[in-house]
Amino acid sequence: MIHRLHVVIPAGGSGTRLWPLSRAARPKFLLDLTGSGRTLLQQTWDRVLPLCAPERVTVVTGRAHSDAVATQLPGLAPGALVAEPSPRDSMAAIGLATMLIHARDPDAVVASVPADHVITDDEAFATALSQAAVAAESGRLATLGITPTTASSAYGWIETGRPMQLDGAPDARHVVGFVEKPHPATAAAHLATGRFCWNAGIFVARANVLLGHLADQQPRLSAGLHRAADAWRAGDGATLEEVWPTLTRIAIDHAVAEPVAATGGMAVVPAELGWDDLGDFASLAGLLPAYDGVRVLGSASSVQAIDASGLVVTRDGRAVTLLGVDDVVVVDTPDALLVTTREHAQRIRECVERWREHGRDDLL
Amino acid sequence: MIHRLHVVIPAGGSGTRLWPLSRAARPKFLLDLTGSGRTLLQQTWDRVLPLCAPERVTVVTGRAHSDAVATQLPGLAPGALVAEPSPRDSMAAIGLATMLIHARDPDAVVASVPADHVITDDEAFATALSQAAVAAESGRLATLGITPTTASSAYGWIETGRPMQLDGAPDARHVVGFVEKPHPATAAAHLATGRFCWNAGIFVARANVLLGHLADQQPRLSAGLHRAADAWRAGDGATLEEVWPTLTRIAIDHAVAEPVAATGGMAVVPAELGWDDLGDFASLAGLLPAYDGVRVLGSASSVQAIDASGLVVTRDGRAVTLLGVDDVVVVDTPDALLVTTREHAQRIRECVERWREHGRDDLL
Repeated sequence: MIHRLHVVIPAGGSGTRLWPLSRAARPKFLLDLTGSGRTLLQQTWDRVLPLCAPERVTVVTGRAHSDAVATQLPGLAPGALVAEPSPRDSMAAIGLATMLIHARDPDAVVASVPADHVITDDEAFATALSQAAVAAESGRLATLGITPTTASSAYGWIETGRPMQLDGAPDARHVVGFVEKPHPATAAAHLATGRFCWNAGIFVARANVLLGHLADQQPRLSAGLHRAADAWRAGDGATLEEVWPTLTRIAIDHAVAEPVAATGGMAVVPAELGWDDLGDFASLAGLLPAYDGVRVLGSASSVQAIDASGLVVTRDGRAVTLLGVDDVVVVDTPDALLVTTREHAQRIRECVERWREHGRDDLL
Repeated sequence: MIHRLHVVIPAGGSGTRLWPLSRAARPKFLLDLTGSGRTLLQQTWDRVLPLCAPERVTVVTGRAHSDAVATQLPGLAPGALVAEPSPRDSMAAIGLATMLIHARDPDAVVASVPADHVITDDEAFATALSQAAVAAESGRLATLGITPTTASSAYGWIETGRPMQLDGAPDARHVVGFVEKPHPATAAAHLATGRFCWNAGIFVARANVLLGHLADQQPRLSAGLHRAADAWRAGDGATLEEVWPTLTRIAIDHAVAEPVAATGGMAVVPAELGWDDLGDFASLAGLLPAYDGVRVLGSASSVQAIDASGLVVTRDGRAVTLLGVDDVVVVDTPDALLVTTREHAQRIRECVERWREHGRDDLL
């Protein structure tokens, strides 16, 4: 357990780049993408439960998914499931949850942990988060930095500065700044310095510190969110409906992390967590076991591959045969089949748009 | 109607090269492969019906398929559906049917027409077949030769000789000989001469002439077939079961056509029929309409293709998306999905074998 810790799990985003595996009605966080028997949301829940009591975990999700979230997380406390009227990006979601927590526990330290990432080393996560909580107690906005393994241009990067020399947080460092998804050459240069981490979107702060930064940096959003939080607590649906659509759509990175880093207020705890954001099929493939050179999510005995490589997502019992296709991505779902390559999988959004244009909203 | 004509439709062969579209239990001839609403067997029936009375059409098929054949051809006369105890290749099937026809009509002219080919020009087929029947009446073993359009090494070729100058058969020529599936260079040379045709496996002869050749060339098979035919007519299942497995497995081409051609007894009627043997997916693709550069068998509105080419076989309602895959072959059936390329589709037999080794006889 980490002293005063509350966890916010923002469970949003449809994960279009994993379509047709993920859908608007069945987003990435509700899926078991690793064959573990637990969905990404459930794995996130399992990961934070050793760090704080279950009644201190809040999930913020879209209305369309709140029933599914409640079903998947039966241990979630009543009132700890916050359903957004519509998506307003991560600052609104995390800000609202933080206000609700702060009202109940003014000394709370809040950690925001995305619902749809994979972390294989839960112990390293616990250690890093407890160090981040120490940095947060000292008044910093803290984040976990993922020790990079490749010159990825798919992630944002964090430039780390000198060690903070905090008791109980030996790895914590100052943040020099954030770098948005860089060009590959820039990413390679970052990797070579040894001073950069990947930004996993995990933030830790005292509730009052985070809300103070929000009020400073985004006063209109802050005021609107306070009205929304009051309405939520009062059960005043009409006011919530009225306020929510007016909130600024902005990610927490842009709203507070970047400006706070620029003024020296951020800490980062670099860590090796076995982290992956499962951002696309190439990323998913890397986490799955290979059979006959092909990565399989589903029943491997349902797949035969001859002179083939790539990724197959299959449903139990339905036989998939690959013959002479390289680096292919085959996603077999009950109502939709996708055949592409790892290279072209970056363009899946175009396919989804094509189906939308043809009136097949059932497939989105 | 063609005088004295009887038609034999040998309906055999599983069409493994079209797996998983065709299966052991649902072979090629029972499928609608052109989207016409009629199966290949039904199209064959439709094609011959203007040429002879329905009671003069005999279908020879495997026991496993006789119910399906009867269902697909409600006009087939009682007794005109001959179920082989096991496959013994085309000479046994056609020989048995010819014996049964000859016993009822000693003057019969028999045309054997495969059940699983496509012919788009039924009028040209009728004209060519009537000329072949004239050549058959003159005592020749006649065949239709398909005017070649490519230097195909997938077909057998027929070398044509000088015109026969028969009344009523202006296009009939002597056959110089047969060439088994040649090397591409040889095929190109054949094409260039203008004297070669493709062998479509359509044979026409007087029943007594064909049976005479059979007795001369394959006396043991002939004797066994006569016992089988007698047993069939007598309803003597035990004798049929005993004799049938002892029959020589040989194609009609090797059993009689080639040796008879060598002694100058064969005639060929070259014709342009819009013929295709639908021997593999490349062949199937050539007959289907293209949407967004992709050939589709099934509902085209269920397919979206972006920067893709090839062939999709789809089931109604199930959405198939192709993105950035070239010359792909995607065959989507309820229990099995195949993803390959047109080039590799030649090796589908290996996939079928792989499933057999894994005990999935349900997929064969």
